Amino acid sequence: MEAGGELRVLGLEGIPEVTENHDLAALIAAAAPDGGFHDGDVVVVAHKAISKAEGRLVEGAERSATIEAESARILRRSGGLVISETRHGFVCANAGVDASNVAPGWVCLLPLDPDLSARRLKARLRHLTGADVAVVISDTFGRTWRQGQTNVAIGVAGIDPFLDYRGQRDSFGNELSATIICVADELAGAAELVMGKSTGRAAALIRGAGVSRGPGSAAGIVRPPEEDLFR
Amino acid sequence: MEAGGELRVLGLEGIPEVTENHDLAALIAAAAPDGGFHDGDVVVVAHKAISKAEGRLVEGAERSATIEAESARILRRSGGLVISETRHGFVCANAGVDASNVAPGWVCLLPLDPDLSARRLKARLRHLTGADVAVVISDTFGRTWRQGQTNVAIGVAGIDPFLDYRGQRDSFGNELSATIICVADELAGAAELVMGKSTGRAAALIRGAGVSRGPGSAAGIVRPPEEDLFR
Repeated sequence: MEAGGELRVLGLEGIPEVTENHDLAALIAAAAPDGGFHDGDVVVVAHKAISKAEGRLVEGAERSATIEAESARILRRSGGLVISETRHGFVCANAGVDASNVAPGWVCLLPLDPDLSARRLKARLRHLTGADVAVVISDTFGRTWRQGQTNVAIGVAGIDPFLDYRGQRDSFGNELSATIICVADELAGAAELVMGKSTGRAAALIRGAGVSRGPGSAAGIVRPPEEDLFR
Repeated sequence: MEAGGELRVLGLEGIPEVTENHDLAALIAAAAPDGGFHDGDVVVVAHKAISKAEGRLVEGAERSATIEAESARILRRSGGLVISETRHGFVCANAGVDASNVAPGWVCLLPLDPDLSARRLKARLRHLTGADVAVVISDTFGRTWRQGQTNVAIGVAGIDPFLDYRGQRDSFGNELSATIICVADELAGAAELVMGKSTGRAAALIRGAGVSRGPGSAAGIVRPPEEDLFR
């Protein structure tokens, strides 16, 4: 398939601080741009809004104990930093347990099943707006070998997270070898550029992404440990 | 600083297959959208166009020998795959040596100094168009723990590759801890969504990215080996 020629990424304004009593889909629908959502739009949501709506906040707990509890396996420890594998299989700092953008004394956990959260949000947005949008739930992860963090997809609904070029040929007739692009992560990163960390934009809309609609999950992005050369 | 509210990513059409005799900046300038480039635009260019313009193509060589020659250090071998550190410090598959989108029998190497390539391209675009654009040179890298590849920055000119939130406070008054976003990689990934692998779009324009102008380099994205927990 061809990539699209123009992509627009819009920060969705006016989503308030989310609590467990909120209908997050309704807040996102209310923040839609003029003209509303369109079929094929991708709605990227910061996981923290999902976690808060799902009550995944813990008060008063020792953060390090919470990190241990949220980790399936610890990969590395260095100073106060723990790199661990979450129960979902994601490898990230502190098992995704985060004390920023939550009330002092509380920590926010990752959603229990971010793919399920994405599918539910997609269905509810369809119900509320009529539009068949895809949903990507994002978190901010560090990487090996490269400084700085980027946003990646931890929940996906409605798109194939990958664009697979295997078997296609380039303009010279060479077969493109083993090029599988994780578009879900690129969409999450593009959304971060308009969402920021402290601007109160918990969601962004991406229009024009040449991605394949269909079932897909962020669980499928997790590289099976036996295929991973850096565990 | 605030992130921008809307970002546009446009694939630049009509850039022909690049050779060493081409003035790549002139080709990119000719592909500018109606209204031309604006100050603050980010031009993302696939490294292969840079490498070809700089004559970084090798014919007839044994690919594996070329990969060894381009590697400062081999990190892992698995089947035909080599994960190595390039002389620039980037860790990637096959030291960036690539046989796709080049004539059969040839391989393409990474630019010798992608930051210098980016600075030169930025200066030449300024000369040709009058616009003060930033330049990001991208390549497609795999990642640990996550399947699929994404585009990242291997050369940068005119922007700080990082957006540093350290010391800022969230809406609850918590200090945001150690959140340094690698916007250069997110810009490269966003551009990939419109550039694709086989569409003949060697460059993209990103308008509205809330990034800081100023000196910056992709060399600075390389995590110092002594700080890396996964070598």
